[in-house]
Amino acid sequence: MARSEAPLAGIDRVAIVGTGLLGGSLGLGLRALGYRGAILGVGRRPETLKTARDAGCVTETTTDLRQAVIASGLVVMATPLGHFVSLLEQIAACNHRDLIITDVGSTKGEVCAHARRLLSVPGRFIGSHPMAGGERHGPEFARADLFNGKPCIVTPADGADFNALNMVESMWSALGMKTVRMTPEEHDQAVAKISHLPHAVAALLVQLAKRGGAMRVASTGFADTTRVASGDAEVWTDIFLTNRAALSSALDELAKDVTRLRDLLQREDMAAVRALLDAGKGGRDELIETWRHGED
Amino acid sequence: MARSEAPLAGIDRVAIVGTGLLGGSLGLGLRALGYRGAILGVGRRPETLKTARDAGCVTETTTDLRQAVIASGLVVMATPLGHFVSLLEQIAACNHRDLIITDVGSTKGEVCAHARRLLSVPGRFIGSHPMAGGERHGPEFARADLFNGKPCIVTPADGADFNALNMVESMWSALGMKTVRMTPEEHDQAVAKISHLPHAVAALLVQLAKRGGAMRVASTGFADTTRVASGDAEVWTDIFLTNRAALSSALDELAKDVTRLRDLLQREDMAAVRALLDAGKGGRDELIETWRHGED
Repeated sequence: MARSEAPLAGIDRVAIVGTGLLGGSLGLGLRALGYRGAILGVGRRPETLKTARDAGCVTETTTDLRQAVIASGLVVMATPLGHFVSLLEQIAACNHRDLIITDVGSTKGEVCAHARRLLSVPGRFIGSHPMAGGERHGPEFARADLFNGKPCIVTPADGADFNALNMVESMWSALGMKTVRMTPEEHDQAVAKISHLPHAVAALLVQLAKRGGAMRVASTGFADTTRVASGDAEVWTDIFLTNRAALSSALDELAKDVTRLRDLLQREDMAAVRALLDAGKGGRDELIETWRHGED
Repeated sequence: MARSEAPLAGIDRVAIVGTGLLGGSLGLGLRALGYRGAILGVGRRPETLKTARDAGCVTETTTDLRQAVIASGLVVMATPLGHFVSLLEQIAACNHRDLIITDVGSTKGEVCAHARRLLSVPGRFIGSHPMAGGERHGPEFARADLFNGKPCIVTPADGADFNALNMVESMWSALGMKTVRMTPEEHDQAVAKISHLPHAVAALLVQLAKRGGAMRVASTGFADTTRVASGDAEVWTDIFLTNRAALSSALDELAKDVTRLRDLLQREDMAAVRALLDAGKGGRDELIETWRHGED
């Protein structure tokens, strides 16, 4: 998947703000691809920065965001979503007009709106959502191949700078990601359905089982279905907050589907139940089959 | 976990009716533990029986259930649930009063009620639910260690024969399972919450995502959350049918929880959302931690 030329041609230094699982893996991945420029880890906690540097995720570190922005050609915001407004305000204050900015946040509507409002050259902000990760966090879990083979949604605004868009998309492609362009709104509705709703349901299923005293007989099926519930609660509260409209709609839709299935069972309409299970199996098998063949 | 003495002492031949993933793995597991008696695979399709025998799951095969019942000391019903009534009727007709009978079905209320109604010595039927498996089926996926470390719920009826109960429980324990005794009703309510509800939700999530055109950006989190939806739709329709009362209640409970979360989001009550995600993470992490330490 990875391209043969080194990524980020023409950029001497990339600043990664937040060197956790995603930021750290981005640094490792760029180095594995032969990126020769400096990779500057930016954060507030010197211990996290030291861990990231010791793990080879970054080649330099600083706690001074202003200094990092001025010295870099690309800034990647890889902190939790709750810090994005403050980061964009600080980046805007640096007035570095050639800077390209992207992020790795799980929702796109709010960050893109903030970028449009705060930045003097909003077209050089290109929203990204690399769909990789897991319930573990911290640079100690970073992997150069974390992004390989996964989708990355890129959400350029109207009037996006072509060079900035190309730089950001080619960086994710070089890391093996399949980039998909969407508007921020399309993105937020799609991820509400395939990520935020499943996360919400996983948390609810755990509580329902616990309330009913059923956890002692839980097996691997339950553990898999609820795996995502082990994700960081602070991170996910931010995700739910910034995508509350689309997630609310998806929850409504699910509540109706759940009630409909309850009615089918009570009527013993097993042909309809069977059709529902067939469709679920068909859709899920198709997803796995698509991945196996590496198709888009 | 496995006991040092060979399992099923005093039983010269065990008949496994249905040599799919569970039946086949039971045969392999018994042989791996040094069981010296005959393991008779019983089924309707000679090809499946041949596959099971070639894979070493059974030592003998027959399509004649009556012959198998008469020649055996223990019969394990490992077919889909939909065949249990017919099997119990045929077993009852053999009038083999020393026979011990168990099953591996995912619901227990109906099969225990049928056993009580149909068998002349109902106390020698001991319902079992070994909570192992996966979405693949067939003897070609059978593994001697499939049951190791997993829970097995045993549902003896009032007046259960002590020797039969002991034989069945010690067989599952020898295979490394943690046996838990419940009434059939307790069992069905517990598995509705930790197995049948998650399965139903997985199928609904797949359909909701597909309907919304969101599958093209699905990632590993979605694949894990919906893994169980790839299970055999016929098998699961039977499970839902035989556990429709408990599953309906669980679906009702979930629909209320989903709607409550929707309300919290719309009110932007993020403290309550955070508490819900914390509880979900806490419960799920605790489950994994318990497994890691091998506690009960």
